This record gives sequence, C-alpha cells and structure tokens, in this order.
Amino acid sequence: MGAPGTLMAAEMDEQPRVLASLATRRAEIADLVRGVLPADLAGILLVARGSSDNAAVFGRYAFELSSRRPVALAAPSLATLYGARTDLRRWLVVAVSQSGRTPEIVTVAESARASGGRVVAMTNDGASALARAADATVELGAGEEKAVPATKTFTAQLAAFAVIAEALGEVPWGDDDWAALPESVRDVLDSPAPVHRVTERLRDAEGLITVGRGFLFATALEASLKLKEAALINAQGYSAADLLHGPIAVVAPDLPVMAFVADGPARADMDELVATVRGRGADVVLVGPVDGDLPVRHGVAEALASIPQTVRAQQVAREVALLRGLDPDVPRGLSKVTMTR
Amino acid sequence: MGAPGTLMAAEMDEQPRVLASLATRRAEIADLVRGVLPADLAGILLVARGSSDNAAVFGRYAFELSSRRPVALAAPSLATLYGARTDLRRWLVVAVSQSGRTPEIVTVAESARASGGRVVAMTNDGASALARAADATVELGAGEEKAVPATKTFTAQLAAFAVIAEALGEVPWGDDDWAALPESVRDVLDSPAPVHRVTERLRDAEGLITVGRGFLFATALEASLKLKEAALINAQGYSAADLLHGPIAVVAPDLPVMAFVADGPARADMDELVATVRGRGADVVLVGPVDGDLPVRHGVAEALASIPQTVRAQQVAREVALLRGLDPDVPRGLSKVTMTR
Repeated sequence: MGAPGTLMAAEMDEQPRVLASLATRRAEIADLVRGVLPADLAGILLVARGSSDNAAVFGRYAFELSSRRPVALAAPSLATLYGARTDLRRWLVVAVSQSGRTPEIVTVAESARASGGRVVAMTNDGASALARAADATVELGAGEEKAVPATKTFTAQLAAFAVIAEALGEVPWGDDDWAALPESVRDVLDSPAPVHRVTERLRDAEGLITVGRGFLFATALEASLKLKEAALINAQGYSAADLLHGPIAVVAPDLPVMAFVADGPARADMDELVATVRGRGADVVLVGPVDGDLPVRHGVAEALASIPQTVRAQQVAREVALLRGLDPDVPRGLSKVTMTR
Repeated sequence: MGAPGTLMAAEMDEQPRVLASLATRRAEIADLVRGVLPADLAGILLVARGSSDNAAVFGRYAFELSSRRPVALAAPSLATLYGARTDLRRWLVVAVSQSGRTPEIVTVAESARASGGRVVAMTNDGASALARAADATVELGAGEEKAVPATKTFTAQLAAFAVIAEALGEVPWGDDDWAALPESVRDVLDSPAPVHRVTERLRDAEGLITVGRGFLFATALEASLKLKEAALINAQGYSAADLLHGPIAVVAPDLPVMAFVADGPARADMDELVATVRGRGADVVLVGPVDGDLPVRHGVAEALASIPQTVRAQQVAREVALLRGLDPDVPRGLSKVTMTR
C-alpha cells in the first residue's frame, strides 16, 4: 500500500490514455452496437447504479438527441422486487457496471433480454456475468480499478456513451473534439494549483451543493458522489432547474455551491443560476470558465466538456479527503463492488 | 394572514377529503385516459419538476407495473435547450404541474404533442396553459394551494397516478384500499404526539437523509424536499439501493436518517438497510411500522401507503420549521409557481 490517495491519483492520471484508446475504437464500437440494434427502435433503457448511474444521465441526453427515441433510466426494483415483465421488444438496453458483477444489474439485464430487449453491456470486464448476459459488450478498457471511488471508469463510461450515440444518429460533436479530449484532460491533471485554493475553502464544509444543466448535470451528480465517498462531505447534486424548484431554499452562506459551466446551450441558464445563488450569499466554486475557480481549457464541445470538468471534481474530492486526514482510496465503510440484489 | 404554518396545516387537513373525492372519480378518470391512449402503446413519458417530479417517481412504478411498458421521466432541457425532436408516436405523455403554469412543463407538453405523443395533463387548474396544451386533463380537485410547500396536491398526484395506472392494466391494490385510504390519512393527522417527539430530535439537524425503496422511494424524495423547503434542513432523498452505492459513506451519528417502511415487496430490503445505518451509529427515524417513531395505521396496500407516510413527513417538516422560528407557509426565497423555462 502506498500513501493515502496514491491509487486514486494513479487512476486519475490514466484517463487521457483510456480516453484516447476509446477514441481510436469509435468505428469498431459503432459497428458492434449497430449489429444488435433492433430494426424500428422504440426506445432505449439504461440500467446502472452509483457512479455508473450518473454516467447514464449523460447517456440519456446523448442517446435521446442522437436516436430521437425516448430514453429511460431503469428502476431495477421493478424487476427484482415487483416482478414486472415490461415488454422490451424493439428496445435497446444498455447495462452499465464497472466490474460487471453487481447482482442487481446482472438480474435486470437478464430480465430485460428475456422480455425481448437487445442488451449491450458496458463494463471493464468482457468475461463478467454482465457481459455473459448481454447480446454484445462494449469494453471500456479502463483496466482494473483499485481505488474505491471510480474515476477512470466513469470518464470512460461518458466517452463510451458518446461513442454509442454516434452509432444512433447525429451528435453535436465530431472528430476534432475527440482529438482534443485527451489533451483537455491532461491539461487539467497538470494544473493542480487552482485545486489547492478551492480545497482550502472547502476543508471544513459539512454540506455542499453541486449543480449543472443538460450534459453537465451528470458531472454535477458525479461530483457530489465523489465528495461524499472520498471526502465525507454531505454533497447533493442538482440540475439547475431542479435546484430552483424548492431546494434553493437551503442555499445560504454556509453551504458552498460548485457550479459546472461550459459554453453551449446550457450556458445562459447556468450563468443566471450562478447569479441567483450568489445573491443568496453562497460561496460559489465556478468550474469551467477560464476566469473561474477551476478553469478548464476545453477545446471540446459542451457534451464532452463533461469529462475534463469531472476530473476537476475528482481532484477536489481527493484533496479535501487528504486535508481531512482521510484516505480517499478506501472510504469509510465502502467496498469496490456493491452487492445490491 | 394567520399564525405561521396555518395555511400548510389547513391544506394538510383537507387531504382525506381530496383523496376520497378522487377515489369516487376512479371510473371517470380511467375512461378519460383510455379515450386518449394510443393503440399499441410503446411507452409512457412523465414530465414534471419539483414535488410533481417526486410524484412522478411513484407514477413511474405504478405505470410500468400496470402497463408493462417502459416509463421514462422526461429531461425537459432536451426539448427546451437542445432542440431534441424525439419521436413520440404511440407514446402516452403525462405532464404534471400543480398550477399548470410552469412554462418549462407547458413547453415540453406542447413539444411532445407536436412529436406525436398523446398528452394527458394532471393539474389543479383545468383552464391552465398546460390543460390547453393537452389531449385530456385529469383534474386533481385539490383546490387552490396557498402555502408554498405543496401538500394536498402532492398526495392527490400520487392518488391520480394510482387511478390512471388502473386504466392501464392490473395493479397491486383494489377497492378496499381506496375505501381505507382517507381514514388512514385522517388517523395520521389526528395523532400528532409522535411527531412532537421526532421534531424535538431533529430541531438542530443541519442535514438529514431520507430513504425508501420501490413505491416508498417517492415518499422519501418528497420528505427531503419538504424538509428543505419548509424547515431549511439540507435533506437528501435516496432509494435504499442508491444509498448503498456510495452515499452511505456519509452516514454517521450526526446525520439522522428518516426511513419509510411499509409491509410489501420492499420491506425486507428496508429492514436490512435500517440495520446497516443503525450499525453506523445513525439516529434512525422509522416511519410506518406500528412500533416505529412515526407509526401509520395503514390498512392499505404498500403502494398507497406512500400517501399517509408522506403526510407524516409533512407534519415533521412543518413542526421543525415552527420550532426553528420559520414560517413554513412562506419559505425563504421561494414562490408558489417556479418559472423555469
């Protein structure tokens, strides 16, 4: 065992390589998905838990925009507790699990296939139970993950969702964005100074709100999960619109807000939201803009900007944990594979 | 204006009457929905924000079980920001808004109808913009709501989702449950003593976790929203399985957990979860069981037990607000209709 946070840092550092590798496999993955896609697609169901479920929120936007079909996030208990036999003929089902071993996800994938769905597994382990339950497997290629908080697997999942979306129809990004993505992440990893300043501000925070809109909503959710898992901050992720529908009541000077902002369709709403929470006295950590607290030199379209912005959140979660004397590699009471049924 | 919390108390007290009224309109509402239901239904899309979105989580379980078709919760920004033109032919769309005036919900309903969906509005105002955008309207009949935190509208929405589910197929509840429901809620309203004991325990809580599974997950989400809006407690709602996938790391003696438990398919998982969080030293507020902190004499099936259990959460949110010197009728910085676009 190395010093606390060594595993997480090493896995975060692999992200540019993992992303570059996925980018080179775009055509291969698209072919694989097209090979199992139902003719006359009715809709797409995503099955996931934990950080994979946050990645699925990104997939939901990417798939619905490109396929022009509704995308649903599964409620696994419908299959595991209530015995639902949902008719999934003409549905594509994408089941996501880092290890491919969470029993609940495997059960739902098996049930979906038995109900007529065409199932694609997205996992690091092409020989896992989940892969065996699927019609096809998209291997993330992130390699074994040893730190409990998923990092390289999460950003690989976002990239894999983006690649699969390309197989389903038109997407608002292209070759140039894929070419720039690994460098954008490398640039974030190589500029830790702004992270130190932010983590000093957050070291005593008990709670925190993370917020994004559209594609960046997934990043806000994942940021809140990393902050909980690694740094034990009681963080909550919201979409900008959901925050305004009630929860904004709790925003006050003692509750920092981490806002994820990139140029694109969601920018204006986010700028307005940031002004609103500042008006309530909140300490806002602005992620993304070059004049923000955690700048990201993007060079990529809004959707893919979710990836380097997530890396900023990983940096903050890891460093706040270390400042608090915690080991982010092995959070309190968590294990690598959660065995929900 | 009366004393703080007067409006909220009066509206909570109307719930048995509103629910009884909806129960008498079951056949009428079922006919109305069947009249617009697409032949060869492909799936169901739910459109909502805020407490209506929490009700939609209940609707999601009820509709998927009964219709045996996948149910998706809309991401409104796909239509309002990203210009998605999702193909909704053969889809039923249920758009939910207390006032029928949230611009974002009206826009998404209009867009869904233009994309081929059959749209049912669920609202208190049958003459609202949302009702005008729909093919049919299920009027909740809860009457005008003056307190900012929705109470009678939320429980009416749960009941309306349950009624619509009956029009879509078999459901795990029946006439006896509807007959017992108003009395179950009245019984909760008439037994405030356990609420006083719980609110004393929670008066200084900064954060809180609410948790349910299956149908009761919607109640956990709504409880966390009421506690935020009315009492300014930074509460977070989870499904039992989601809580285990990472967020459980933050569970500790200083973070109370409110658990919603009813007899039924989700009971065993909830009992296990309660034991787990108690093992981490959490102060657990058990809602539901007769020997719990907030007992509910149900007499109704698990799904409909969500309704009296939600009333328990309303009582707690209102009373903690009053203990803290807040007026739950008019929470800090909220207005009755949130104008997200």
